[in-house]
Amino acid sequence: MTMAPNDRGANETVFTLEATQLKFGNGAVEELDWELKRLGLRKILLVADPRLRRLGMTERVTDIIARAGVEISVFENILVEPTIESLGEAAAFAASRDVDGFVALGGGSTIDTAKVANLIRSHGGAIIDYVNAPVGGGRKPPSPLRPLIAIPTTSGSGSEATTVAVLDIPELKMKTGISHRYMRPTLAIVDPELARTTPGAVTASCGLDVVCHAVESFISRPFDARPRPATPDDRPPYQGSNPVADIWSLKAIEFGGRFLERAVRDGNDLEARGTMMLGATMAGIGFGTAGVHIPHACAYPLAGLKHSYSAPGYETSHNFVPHGFSVIVTSPAVFRFTYDAAPDKHIQAAELLNAGPIANPGRDTLPDTLIRLMKAVGAPSGIAELGYGEEDIPALVQGALKQQRLLVGAPKAIDAAGIEAVMRQSLRNW
Amino acid sequence: MTMAPNDRGANETVFTLEATQLKFGNGAVEELDWELKRLGLRKILLVADPRLRRLGMTERVTDIIARAGVEISVFENILVEPTIESLGEAAAFAASRDVDGFVALGGGSTIDTAKVANLIRSHGGAIIDYVNAPVGGGRKPPSPLRPLIAIPTTSGSGSEATTVAVLDIPELKMKTGISHRYMRPTLAIVDPELARTTPGAVTASCGLDVVCHAVESFISRPFDARPRPATPDDRPPYQGSNPVADIWSLKAIEFGGRFLERAVRDGNDLEARGTMMLGATMAGIGFGTAGVHIPHACAYPLAGLKHSYSAPGYETSHNFVPHGFSVIVTSPAVFRFTYDAAPDKHIQAAELLNAGPIANPGRDTLPDTLIRLMKAVGAPSGIAELGYGEEDIPALVQGALKQQRLLVGAPKAIDAAGIEAVMRQSLRNW
Ligand SMILES: [Fe+2]
Ligand SMILES: [Fe+2]
Repeated sequence: MTMAPNDRGANETVFTLEATQLKFGNGAVEELDWELKRLGLRKILLVADPRLRRLGMTERVTDIIARAGVEISVFENILVEPTIESLGEAAAFAASRDVDGFVALGGGSTIDTAKVANLIRSHGGAIIDYVNAPVGGGRKPPSPLRPLIAIPTTSGSGSEATTVAVLDIPELKMKTGISHRYMRPTLAIVDPELARTTPGAVTASCGLDVVCHAVESFISRPFDARPRPATPDDRPPYQGSNPVADIWSLKAIEFGGRFLERAVRDGNDLEARGTMMLGATMAGIGFGTAGVHIPHACAYPLAGLKHSYSAPGYETSHNFVPHGFSVIVTSPAVFRFTYDAAPDKHIQAAELLNAGPIANPGRDTLPDTLIRLMKAVGAPSGIAELGYGEEDIPALVQGALKQQRLLVGAPKAIDAAGIEAVMRQSLRNW
Repeated sequence: MTMAPNDRGANETVFTLEATQLKFGNGAVEELDWELKRLGLRKILLVADPRLRRLGMTERVTDIIARAGVEISVFENILVEPTIESLGEAAAFAASRDVDGFVALGGGSTIDTAKVANLIRSHGGAIIDYVNAPVGGGRKPPSPLRPLIAIPTTSGSGSEATTVAVLDIPELKMKTGISHRYMRPTLAIVDPELARTTPGAVTASCGLDVVCHAVESFISRPFDARPRPATPDDRPPYQGSNPVADIWSLKAIEFGGRFLERAVRDGNDLEARGTMMLGATMAGIGFGTAGVHIPHACAYPLAGLKHSYSAPGYETSHNFVPHGFSVIVTSPAVFRFTYDAAPDKHIQAAELLNAGPIANPGRDTLPDTLIRLMKAVGAPSGIAELGYGEEDIPALVQGALKQQRLLVGAPKAIDAAGIEAVMRQSLRNW
């Protein structure tokens, strides 16, 4: 953090932090009725992962909502990879029921669906208008949306704490998103008991996503190494690493190192699952301000281009690459590439993930630590296992290059050749 | 953090976190006009520390506000120790100007004055109705207040991040407060350049307050060692230490250890002053959820009972004990007393304050570290230097015992004899 008196130079000198309100703990979901009453809501849409109905969780939550005397509609037609069409259906449903607030119960896809339904319910228009440019119109919501309470049931996306909704555009074989501070949920209720039934393989993918969020954010280009924006309006949601975001990121990295393996092994290990849920939200606060970069940019084409990977633990009718696996597979190569930009930060992240000091640290320390964690929780060994070969690399590189919004956050500039090298090294990490 | 599956027991299992939106950095105050426009405000009351006018700061801020095309009234009749009367004057002024929002520019007293003016402007009634019971009516504001942007110019109270306003009741020779989540400012703009002109002695007192906030919070009774409240409404603002509040508290302790001495020595050391400002806000977020306890309970009578201490650095017409000095003087004795409740946490706090490991740590480690810091920044040596003698101890004990709201947060129960021992040990710390 440089602070030159008087002369503020041409670089950014300011960062901002907005954290979602958080309610955390076993049984926290039992206070949902009280929160709905406090917000003065009368008619809400519960957007719920359809898988949860069979587990009795959807009914449990509707019972709690009913205690508040609030009228409920339920929308469960959630795609694991939401599309404009699936999001549009949710938005139309919300409009038809005239709701004044939202509750989301599920993982990242569910919470993202609720965010977009809330956006359209609050400000109208077509979804594509709000999608990040150049794919969409980049329109900004003019004022805050209706209240949205997010109740995550996996410990991954951190969507309950972020301003982003990710969506798939199958016609373009790409993923993109809608991103604005008003998309952040009003309140996150994080209840470890809700994660008990999540399959281990889902916990693994989600947990690796958390680790990537935290490590990418911590190692992102510092806020004060970026040019100052022309107006505060032009300050991007992803501002780069800063002393406050770093605190969240480091804690999430530490939690990943200490608890992810345990959380994957045993759903009833509520300490491990609970801490990973808290870590997911913390990483969400961290990356919601600092930002993710190269691994997430590479993950978009890895998830969008081919759907040939059969994801263990997920019950869907189609093959797809779970988001956490799509980000972790290139992370060893990426952090080998970015090492020079901030060696100390790379080592610090590795030592936290490793829960202890590492002898003779260097360029391979963080990549090796990540690979050890990937093996320990059953992640795919690389992009080859996700169904990609040498011949796919040009298309993957082109796909990643489209995510300039993310790539500018890298601590070191990367071009097509750099991404190609990352993809090639990531075919098989072991 | 205990997480027993299914059986949640009789203890609290939930904690909450609400953090004020933060905008931090050199020149951040230049974005005040943009923030006022974003909030849609038209007529605001600027509550400003009168000392700042001579430094040109009030004029600078009114110029920035004017750029937003917002109508401004200025209220500068702030007492260093606000009373119901002085707060009432601010509230009446706000009502007479029909303002729709507030900006506070100054230290804790200024921000607290703006909080109370906003409360009465938003919900009417008499101030005493809202004051914590049993002194006041303990009335809760029924809905959020008008927007309040807090711009701290000292690095101490953390008031920009908390839900509390402290006030003096001279007739009762005591201090008390108003405390509710809706009292938390909408946004804190923390600009290190604004702290450059603060006298070193004020920086010292404010910084010791930050250290106390952080250490008391970190060492407070854990949230899950308290009984579960009957309803979420009964969950106190001060919930006890928890994994998220601890993160903020530990960082603020670390900053205090690394930067307070430098910040006191040289106002132009913007890195040190800036980091202490950030630390003050972080500690505010931490103690705003976890809570302070014995040293702050003792500080109320120490500040309220006698006004014989002539505070260096403060320009006031009356003698008074700066808040930071009133809390730090008993802290060595308090943490000697609480040591058994959590030895590891005491040592961890001492090592962070000391910026390094301490050989043969024990009961005296944290007290000794605090005393070293007090000496280094020119704090009074104990309550004797504040004007109190043996003969005042019974009255001081009675005054501290009135702060049961705080004392319940101590990690170890303390009674009259315990507080008497603390006061006696604190007459002279060296
Ligand atoms: Fe992600
Ligand atoms: Fe204080």
